[in-house]
Amino acid sequence: MKNSLDKEMRPAPDAYADDSYALHTDKYQINMTQAYWQDQIHERKAVFEVYFRKIPFENGYAVFAGLERVIRYLQQFRFTKSDLDYLREDGYSEEFLAYLEQLRFTGSVRSMQEGELVFANEPMMQIEAPLAEAQLIETALLNMVNFQTLIATKASRIKQVIGQEISMEFGTRRAQEMDAAIWGARAAYIAGFEATSNVRAGKLFGIPTVGTHAHAMVQAYRDEYTAFHKYAEAHKDCVFLVDTYDTLRSGVPTAIQVAKELGPKINFLGIRLDSGDLAYLSKEARKMLDAAGFKQAKIYATNDLDEHTIMNLKAQGAKIDVWGVGTKLITAYDQPALGAVYKLIAIEDENGQMQDTIKISSNPEKVTTPGRKKVFRIINKGNQKSEGDYIALVHENPQQEDPLKMFHPVHTHVAKFVTNFEARELHHTIFEAGKLVYKLPGLSEIQQYAAQNLELLWDEYKRMLNPAEYPVDLSQACWDNKMRLIAEIMQQVGRRVQA
Amino acid sequence: MKNSLDKEMRPAPDAYADDSYALHTDKYQINMTQAYWQDQIHERKAVFEVYFRKIPFENGYAVFAGLERVIRYLQQFRFTKSDLDYLREDGYSEEFLAYLEQLRFTGSVRSMQEGELVFANEPMMQIEAPLAEAQLIETALLNMVNFQTLIATKASRIKQVIGQEISMEFGTRRAQEMDAAIWGARAAYIAGFEATSNVRAGKLFGIPTVGTHAHAMVQAYRDEYTAFHKYAEAHKDCVFLVDTYDTLRSGVPTAIQVAKELGPKINFLGIRLDSGDLAYLSKEARKMLDAAGFKQAKIYATNDLDEHTIMNLKAQGAKIDVWGVGTKLITAYDQPALGAVYKLIAIEDENGQMQDTIKISSNPEKVTTPGRKKVFRIINKGNQKSEGDYIALVHENPQQEDPLKMFHPVHTHVAKFVTNFEARELHHTIFEAGKLVYKLPGLSEIQQYAAQNLELLWDEYKRMLNPAEYPVDLSQACWDNKMRLIAEIMQQVGRRVQA
Repeated sequence: MKNSLDKEMRPAPDAYADDSYALHTDKYQINMTQAYWQDQIHERKAVFEVYFRKIPFENGYAVFAGLERVIRYLQQFRFTKSDLDYLREDGYSEEFLAYLEQLRFTGSVRSMQEGELVFANEPMMQIEAPLAEAQLIETALLNMVNFQTLIATKASRIKQVIGQEISMEFGTRRAQEMDAAIWGARAAYIAGFEATSNVRAGKLFGIPTVGTHAHAMVQAYRDEYTAFHKYAEAHKDCVFLVDTYDTLRSGVPTAIQVAKELGPKINFLGIRLDSGDLAYLSKEARKMLDAAGFKQAKIYATNDLDEHTIMNLKAQGAKIDVWGVGTKLITAYDQPALGAVYKLIAIEDENGQMQDTIKISSNPEKVTTPGRKKVFRIINKGNQKSEGDYIALVHENPQQEDPLKMFHPVHTHVAKFVTNFEARELHHTIFEAGKLVYKLPGLSEIQQYAAQNLELLWDEYKRMLNPAEYPVDLSQACWDNKMRLIAEIMQQVGRRVQA
Repeated sequence: MKNSLDKEMRPAPDAYADDSYALHTDKYQINMTQAYWQDQIHERKAVFEVYFRKIPFENGYAVFAGLERVIRYLQQFRFTKSDLDYLREDGYSEEFLAYLEQLRFTGSVRSMQEGELVFANEPMMQIEAPLAEAQLIETALLNMVNFQTLIATKASRIKQVIGQEISMEFGTRRAQEMDAAIWGARAAYIAGFEATSNVRAGKLFGIPTVGTHAHAMVQAYRDEYTAFHKYAEAHKDCVFLVDTYDTLRSGVPTAIQVAKELGPKINFLGIRLDSGDLAYLSKEARKMLDAAGFKQAKIYATNDLDEHTIMNLKAQGAKIDVWGVGTKLITAYDQPALGAVYKLIAIEDENGQMQDTIKISSNPEKVTTPGRKKVFRIINKGNQKSEGDYIALVHENPQQEDPLKMFHPVHTHVAKFVTNFEARELHHTIFEAGKLVYKLPGLSEIQQYAAQNLELLWDEYKRMLNPAEYPVDLSQACWDNKMRLIAEIMQQVGRRVQA
């Protein structure tokens, strides 16, 4: 396998069909797999967990998304002929390619459901599979979960500020390529956005789509009056864009004039503002619409909105009914990457026994928590609010403990005892031995689930700025196990240094 | 066509095949198209230009990329049966769907070539097509060009700091979904990156791929010594990851020990550092490698690198030979969106005459520059450096002027006269009447072209921080035309307000 840079670029693009995602992975996954296969440990059972170390945007919670895409990916996982041809050209052996050719995903997956609230350092997904399979899927899985969870979280944050008004996702043209546009639209919908402008996202996911006209239409007809009339001749529902030339002196009066002329022939839904001072313009436009008798007409606003501008516009009494959010949402502009990782937490040894594993780091928050775990949301039955999340080893059942001791995993003296609670398990079995056993919920269900979940959180955790820190605690057994493995590893490293 | 939110979500995903990008557009494009078609102006010739208003990252230049993807998209542009079925369900009329069904891209495209240096407010692409077609392709075209140009620019910026050392793109797991990973890898390669970790990008584009092993492999074997040996049994080329437990006390000594034991059986290419203080660790590791006789072994570094950290590490004398750049590159972390726009600059009138159009805005930099234009790079024949770019109306030829007057389009008193120059036209004809007439260059050619182009710029324009502003000037005729149209529109708006 050639790994140096001295090979020539192939001149022809499109030499291979883009008919598989199996190679949508980092090359080191393939090279590790080859080493495992050669050493015949590739079928040892390994357990990996997916989690992130920090909630994005300094938000108080994140919203898990991406599972459906991962399920489809795992169901279709196989190396196609074009994949194998490419790897052959790259120097991999025929024996190894024959092994890859027959490979399918045969593992088990436990995962949070989409729309679940998730916090730092708790496993969103757990993959238990032959080592080679678990390794090969890491990169694509993170690629999908990182992005959709990031956007769902950003959208939820924005939706918290928008509140009961209508929110729409309009970001496709600034999205980071095509997949980001459609999967981002889906993630935004999960978090409570009502619609998207992307028609393909509507087609594929059933999300309601919206959109009327752009400045180009006004330019094409050279004046707003003609453009609005022509739009209305083709469409019953009309939202007129009023800022092509001069919002208050030209756009709004023309929209009103056309709406009056056409009367019941159209549904005059409202006007859209896309530039200028949206607080001032919306208040003035509202007065003009009301004075003309169009009290039901809504004011749509777009133009680089995010949770901060929306909050400020609202604080100034902007009269905006529908918020169209684009760039800042679809790219998660202020933090465009979620750093979810995929860490080995247990592996079968040469005797067929599962052994917990740990990764030490000079960076303390990068030390992994070993062993197979479950995550519980501890819900106070008295007020139906969550007391925090509780991560236990797989054999534990916190529901049987009363009171349940919850302590901070770093500052262990910070502790509380909880009684009268429901310990709701957050992981569901998705795949069992390669077979999908999970019934995929519809997207509306997921959206509703996400909304219900937010009800469990005190407002303090949902504040946009400086939210309180939601407790994510380890069980005593889980904490003890981690400390034991840290000590073991440090001793091993010590021995090596002395040797 | 339903455009309100009261329709129910369809419960079933996958109701429609994802077999086309024609609906990868904003819904308003379809609604405008319907209005044009109903009014029978949909085949009037329209000219749109693609440009951005501000160079990202406060860089001194941007690198144009995305053309090849746009070409494939335009060649394949058609509404499939599943697209039409979806639009039918959404309420569009059969007559309109019949029109869409036969629609193909029949327009002409002029564009900069990939790898071209591009600056604010100059047209990268010019689309001349029947109004409906030009409108329908806007969103997808911007989606592709915005992202690839953004990443190529970020990569070029990082490459400027890396200089002659080796640079690799490692960002897939944090990329904004799958398309961003592979098209981002391609854009980075255009800007001078030598390789990617994404194997699918290697397969599809012929980019060299690299990667050895991860922490998980050390964990799987429970110690570095065994893991390195097992990797070496399967692979001749070895780069050992040395920071799983303790870089200087365990990882580097073990890598050296294994390399000595295996001797000529492997190519010990070097070690990889992925955490800790990369300046300190690389200097210490260099000493250890040198002392052990491995002076040729390279030190690879990864871990949230960008142009700022790389410059700082270099300033401190870090001994890093190969830079693996991930998240910050693939997401353009500090500015994750390029705001390229697509503006109507001329349209055929009812008499078949082309009329220039303009969009006015209260935001002065949002006023468009009307008319079909060409972009020239004015190269000083004496020193082979660029004097700036010159945007002229389509019938002008600046090569025939000597001296050529170049003046600032806002601060018009800032002017210079240039003699002994080559006026190099930057647009190429890509499509003519729907037919591809452009020979697509190979990716290596594009990379070389981008590198050569940078030679034309004075270093002052390439500085990472506070670069000098590269001149992008309008011809006198182009400037006069813009002023004339502004005056006309202001008069029209004035008339409307009085009416």
